[in-house]
Amino acid sequence: MAQPARSRTRLDPAGRRRQLLDVGARLFAERPYDLVSIEEIAVRAGVSRGLMYRYFATKRDLFRAVVQATADHMIDLTDPDPALPLEQQILAGLDRYLDHFEANATLIRAAYTGAASADEHVRAIIADKARRHEDRLLDRLRQAGVPETPRLRVALRGWILMCRMLILDWLDTREISRTELRDVCAQSLLDLAAHAGRQSTAAAP
Amino acid sequence: MAQPARSRTRLDPAGRRRQLLDVGARLFAERPYDLVSIEEIAVRAGVSRGLMYRYFATKRDLFRAVVQATADHMIDLTDPDPALPLEQQILAGLDRYLDHFEANATLIRAAYTGAASADEHVRAIIADKARRHEDRLLDRLRQAGVPETPRLRVALRGWILMCRMLILDWLDTREISRTELRDVCAQSLLDLAAHAGRQSTAAAP
Repeated sequence: MAQPARSRTRLDPAGRRRQLLDVGARLFAERPYDLVSIEEIAVRAGVSRGLMYRYFATKRDLFRAVVQATADHMIDLTDPDPALPLEQQILAGLDRYLDHFEANATLIRAAYTGAASADEHVRAIIADKARRHEDRLLDRLRQAGVPETPRLRVALRGWILMCRMLILDWLDTREISRTELRDVCAQSLLDLAAHAGRQSTAAAP
Repeated sequence: MAQPARSRTRLDPAGRRRQLLDVGARLFAERPYDLVSIEEIAVRAGVSRGLMYRYFATKRDLFRAVVQATADHMIDLTDPDPALPLEQQILAGLDRYLDHFEANATLIRAAYTGAASADEHVRAIIADKARRHEDRLLDRLRQAGVPETPRLRVALRGWILMCRMLILDWLDTREISRTELRDVCAQSLLDLAAHAGRQSTAAAP
């Protein structure tokens, strides 16, 4: 199972941490959480267990750090060019979001639905990522002239969750094309932006 | 903690099962899963532990049965009058769906996000309920002249998940009015129905 240790490389602590996260991310992306061991990650990274434990005391600690790094990467990756028209920003952002899910399906599933997903740190990382995503979207919609209302914020939050679940589901079923899936998500965001300023059918308290 | 046993009533097995489910549903709706014990349910229902165990061998079995009964109830409760115009069916269905969530918040949270939510039987019950909900919505949309496409089915599935999560979130935050929340959900369903027959911006495989 374990691959032979690579020749040990001298790395500064930040570089070593990044390397361990990369190796961990790859393993967590290949296999369910329960089938990954921290010892195997040490072997693959070519470091001793002792060194590994100095960076990550448990598999759970490493998993949390990998989820955090993946969340940060997703937020950077899906940052569309603010100079583009809104619709193109949305399509470009969704394309990269889909790339991200396709490249990291097992890891993302583990973070959202697997045994490790009940971990409160993992949930907090995901909630924080969704919040950052929501803030950025609000910002871009505001720049495009969409009025920022509490209703819009709630609808955006729902939209982010919906896209995430539709994509996770689609990775299993592929019942429509990737382009259609992207369009379902994009259209629904454009629609909710169009209704952001709308009054409710009855008075709000 | 436990209330005094009520006088024991003779019930046929189906009636007894229903009674135990009712008592269980009430307790699971009041408190998190971990703080409910099957012994307490027996005391509240006024039955011996031995009798309780004949119906439900473990708390998990009872919880699954309560989730199933609650799902069936939700599906019946939110069945809008098919003679109404589509928009009114949607608003009426959402109103009852919101009633259902407000009345059973703790139980629903336990089924969707609590410690017991990872149980594969609970997940299967919820997936089956979502599927029935989706089928009925598709049916009503078809009657209203909306073309049934794979894209529509996927979008509906996303919509159901989105509403569920928005409502669960809203129960905690109440950051918009119930009417606004209902309108966000209703509008988004009307929008996706309007786009059901739309071609994607690129050819589907």
